[in-house]
This record gives sequence, structure tokens and C-alpha cells, in this order.
Amino acid sequence: MSDRTRLSRLREKARTDRASLDALLDSTLVGHFGLVDDDGRPVVVPTAIVRDGDRVLLHGSTGSRWMRRLADGAPTCLTVTALDGYVVARSAFESSLHYRSAVLFGSCTRLPDTEVEVALDRVTERMLPGRTAEVRRPQRKELEATLVLALPIAEWSLKVSDGWPDDGPDDVAGPAWAGVVPLAHVARGPIAAPDLRAGIACPPSVTGLTSSG
Amino acid sequence: MSDRTRLSRLREKARTDRASLDALLDSTLVGHFGLVDDDGRPVVVPTAIVRDGDRVLLHGSTGSRWMRRLADGAPTCLTVTALDGYVVARSAFESSLHYRSAVLFGSCTRLPDTEVEVALDRVTERMLPGRTAEVRRPQRKELEATLVLALPIAEWSLKVSDGWPDDGPDDVAGPAWAGVVPLAHVARGPIAAPDLRAGIACPPSVTGLTSSG
Repeated sequence: MSDRTRLSRLREKARTDRASLDALLDSTLVGHFGLVDDDGRPVVVPTAIVRDGDRVLLHGSTGSRWMRRLADGAPTCLTVTALDGYVVARSAFESSLHYRSAVLFGSCTRLPDTEVEVALDRVTERMLPGRTAEVRRPQRKELEATLVLALPIAEWSLKVSDGWPDDGPDDVAGPAWAGVVPLAHVARGPIAAPDLRAGIACPPSVTGLTSSG
Repeated sequence: MSDRTRLSRLREKARTDRASLDALLDSTLVGHFGLVDDDGRPVVVPTAIVRDGDRVLLHGSTGSRWMRRLADGAPTCLTVTALDGYVVARSAFESSLHYRSAVLFGSCTRLPDTEVEVALDRVTERMLPGRTAEVRRPQRKELEATLVLALPIAEWSLKVSDGWPDDGPDDVAGPAWAGVVPLAHVARGPIAAPDLRAGIACPPSVTGLTSSG
């Protein structure tokens, strides 16, 4: 733990176990990368993320300015947030949200060309388990157009809000309701592309998204 | 539109109408604020956001380091992202996500004390419509413990990915399925707090969350 990852507030919400961090990273599709631009001003870029052991993979076009800056090793901050519910307290002041939020500091490195194809398979399998076996292999030009970067999971903090409303005794004795309303991110039924040829059934990788949702 | 908000890539995904921006801001509970720390390194902080006309409100504890830095007018970048679905193309390369992502640049100003209560009511009503009428008024000490900041909606860009898979003719002629799987953020049934007194019914502000979800 460093000065940057020691929570200055709400320390009771801090979690330091990797399992909790991994659970958040493995269930969240998009993270937000912070960068500093040439003028010294902050920029925040949303990007799909996939955990791969002790690192987080991200990928994008070789034409992306921010991907190239990250590939060059610019200091970055990756924040990954899951919104899990409403905390409905008996006062507006105590009302809040259930969330899990991880902050990772570090710098990315670019994966060598020989590792790009395996890494992109991992991305695909994370997003749509089973999909790599249903589609053709990537083409050389596709691999060459894609930057895959890795951010080590090294300097990080995790904050989890998952408690009940914390109303004082006067409010508890009052007339207002209190509780929690969970939020879920769920997949709806798949919609076939207009140009899908007749006779091609929806595959297991896609039906699996909704059955577990 | 400035150099910072002109998209350098995927320009076909750019939207410039305020209605599309407002729809995103009004349907997303949490945004990510970028800041630059004293060492010149980026930090990304997730925070609840509420649009109020031509500005975005955020609030937090007067004890929060990052809220105070924002209140001091530090340059910031607010990125608001909604994940709307999976784009399942016939190749891994063309597969992607449906998303809407706004980036706002600027600096926050602190609302004067006289405007804090009205602003917090707006926050409460945005999160739980009808809730302000169900709970007691904020106490003076609660208002004094809360910083409310406003970021003007002035320098911004919006990117929307909402199309079908864009496979080439060879892939369209092949055996793989293609389509879209929508994602939705839905509220589940409310769970009463363990210390809720008997006879207090779940109020309209809470039942309304699930009926519209």
C-alpha cells in the first residue's frame, strides 16, 4: 500500500484482498483510464478491460492517440466501478449508493506481437465465453491493426459500499422507510443482424449471456 | 468544438446534439472525474452526477481531498459512459460493444451556501423521484458537511456506438452468427433495512424504481 492507495476517507469501506479486486475486475466490462495531456490537463478514456492473472489487458486501434500514449508508458490511473444498488436511508443525507470501485496506478506496456493473438482470444472469451471456437481466426492485418496493452495489478485500492442505511436513532424512530434496492446489469434477448443469412442459429456464446443474466 | 473535443478517430460515431448528451447524463448515475495530482500524475474518481440545466452537479464530503481540489477549480475531465450492449460480429475483430460516452472538459465551481439545499434536493429527486417529500428536511450540520460543485456543460464531445456488426462480404457469406445483445441496468425488488420499524410501507419513490426498470 502506498500513499496514493491508502484511503483518506471512509476507511471502513476499504478492502485489501485480491479476491475482491479480481471479482470486480472480472465482472466489469469497461474501465476508465486517466491520462495527462500535453497541456498538463487530465483526460479520462473509457475502454474495455480484461483481467489476465496479475495484469489488466486493454486493446484498441494502433490509430488511437490515447492507446499510443498509454503504450509509450505514460503514467495512468485505471478506475473500475460497479454500481450495485441504491441505499435508501431515512434522510437524504444518509442515502447513497452501493458500489465497488477499484483504482489502479501504474504504466502500461505493449504486448509483443507474438502474444497479441493469444491475448485477444482471452479478451473475446471474457466478453463472450466460447466465442473463439465459433468464429474464424484473426487475420494478420487485423492483428497488426490492434494494440494490446497490459497494466500490472500492483499499486491499487478498492472501496466497497455494501451496508445498510446508517440512520441515527431519531430517524429510525421516525416515519420514513429505509432499505436497499439492488441494481443489476442484465443481458436482454439477442437480436439477429439484418444481413444474417437464413438457417444460422444463435450460438451458445450468445445464448449463454442471457441465461446467466 | 475545440481541438480537445474533435474526435480524431471513429468520427462517424460523433454526436453533436445536446439532446443526445442530456439523455446520457440523465440516465447515468455515476461519472468519472479526472484530476492531476501534485506529482503530475492522473487520478480518476467515480462520483454520482446529476444534470441541472447547462451544468452537471456533483456532491461529496467537505473532508474529501478530491472534492476540495475540484472545488478549487482544478482542470478536470468528466467522462460519462453507458454500456448498452454487445455487438456480436462474425469475427472477433469486428465484435465490439454498444456504448454512449461523453467527455466534458472544464473546471468546477462551488455552489454558494444559499444554493446547497436546493441543489441537494435536485440530486435526491434525480436518484429517487419523489423522495424529498418522504423524508425530513436536511439539517444545518448536514448541509455544512456537504460540498456541492457544478461543472458547466460547455466543452464536450459525445461518441455513440449503436450500429450492427460491420462484417465484410466474406464473413457475411460464412457460417458465423451476427447480431446484438442489449444490456440493461435494472432495479431489483427493494429489501427493507433490518431495523425498519413494523408498519412502514415501501414508498412510491422506491416502488417507482422497479416498475420502470
